[in-house]
Amino acid sequence: MTRPNLQIACDHSDLPSALADIKNVGDVVDIIEAGTILLLQTGDTTIKSFRALFPDKKIVADTKCADAGTTVARNCANAGADWMTVICAATIPTMKAAAKEISEVQVELYGDWTYEQAQQWLDAGISQAIYHQSRDALLAGETWGEKDLTKVKKLIDMGFRVSVTGGLNVDTLKLFEGIDVYTFITGRGITAAENPRQAALDFMAEIKRIWGE
Amino acid sequence: MTRPNLQIACDHSDLPSALADIKNVGDVVDIIEAGTILLLQTGDTTIKSFRALFPDKKIVADTKCADAGTTVARNCANAGADWMTVICAATIPTMKAAAKEISEVQVELYGDWTYEQAQQWLDAGISQAIYHQSRDALLAGETWGEKDLTKVKKLIDMGFRVSVTGGLNVDTLKLFEGIDVYTFITGRGITAAENPRQAALDFMAEIKRIWGE
Repeated sequence: MTRPNLQIACDHSDLPSALADIKNVGDVVDIIEAGTILLLQTGDTTIKSFRALFPDKKIVADTKCADAGTTVARNCANAGADWMTVICAATIPTMKAAAKEISEVQVELYGDWTYEQAQQWLDAGISQAIYHQSRDALLAGETWGEKDLTKVKKLIDMGFRVSVTGGLNVDTLKLFEGIDVYTFITGRGITAAENPRQAALDFMAEIKRIWGE
Repeated sequence: MTRPNLQIACDHSDLPSALADIKNVGDVVDIIEAGTILLLQTGDTTIKSFRALFPDKKIVADTKCADAGTTVARNCANAGADWMTVICAATIPTMKAAAKEISEVQVELYGDWTYEQAQQWLDAGISQAIYHQSRDALLAGETWGEKDLTKVKKLIDMGFRVSVTGGLNVDTLKLFEGIDVYTFITGRGITAAENPRQAALDFMAEIKRIWGE
């Protein structure tokens, strides 16, 4: 198995605090995400700033694009993003349109999607999916369980590179042992830690312990 | 029947051209929308600018929020938005969380939603829905038809105030005659016209001709 990537999600509401966090951990993680909240608050300045600070890292724009795939993807690519997200409720034409304008598109799985739809995404050339525990679902008391892991495994078996996110911390990583996860995404798991840089290093050390270098 | 509202969607990629358009038509329309593309490019500066220019108009932030309802809604409300959109794939906790922080939430219908889900939105206190012809679907050659009108009518019968959008122009408004549409949303139908102000006036005149003052 390949070592899963570690991705920091910047879900801040303002750019300065996001910049402070990625200054601390940007060189530790593999992928830096401009979160949806941050994009809606600050626009493409965030993507441009992340690119300027970390020219060699993968940068993801978490647009959760639902429509106008061409324009949204082109804007993100122009600002310096490598990847962007589309919501699973987007139509196939929207996903395909986005995929033409940026290196890669990732499908964000929220609500009631089906494996039949997932196959259509694959058929359309979209092979990255993000499996979520919704932040609001987590706040409502739901957690990672066998049901989630089964879905993640099935998506991987179908041919997706699957990122997982939502309430992850260093202790929950071992739940995924034996599963070929592509990327672990965490925001507060790192940014809300007393020492964010140490938290990022701990995440990476645990990933390497379980999946190898 | 009440006269349907007219809403201008600012789907620009930069704020100055959006400002130029709403300066021309802001006093004609009922509702001004900060489009998703524009929000992702410019952040909440757009909402704040719209509010500053038109203190008495309804302003909608088309966030298509899929998660973190509390934060996204609070940010939009703080910037001056009256309403915001959530994507139909969002969970009920996300929709409820958003609805607590802003005057009203509208559900954007994309992809494969069901009437069972729609009933859950109503039960959660969300009574505005936006029925879309996807921009990318329109580009792929799909148009308004009986299938769409039937769905719009059914949603209205369920108790939703329904906005319709996607490829509308003055000539297509009559397709909706006899239907209690809450709001017609158009972007390029106005902004791409040779004379946007005249286009907005024509839209409003046709709405009044069909539905009364």
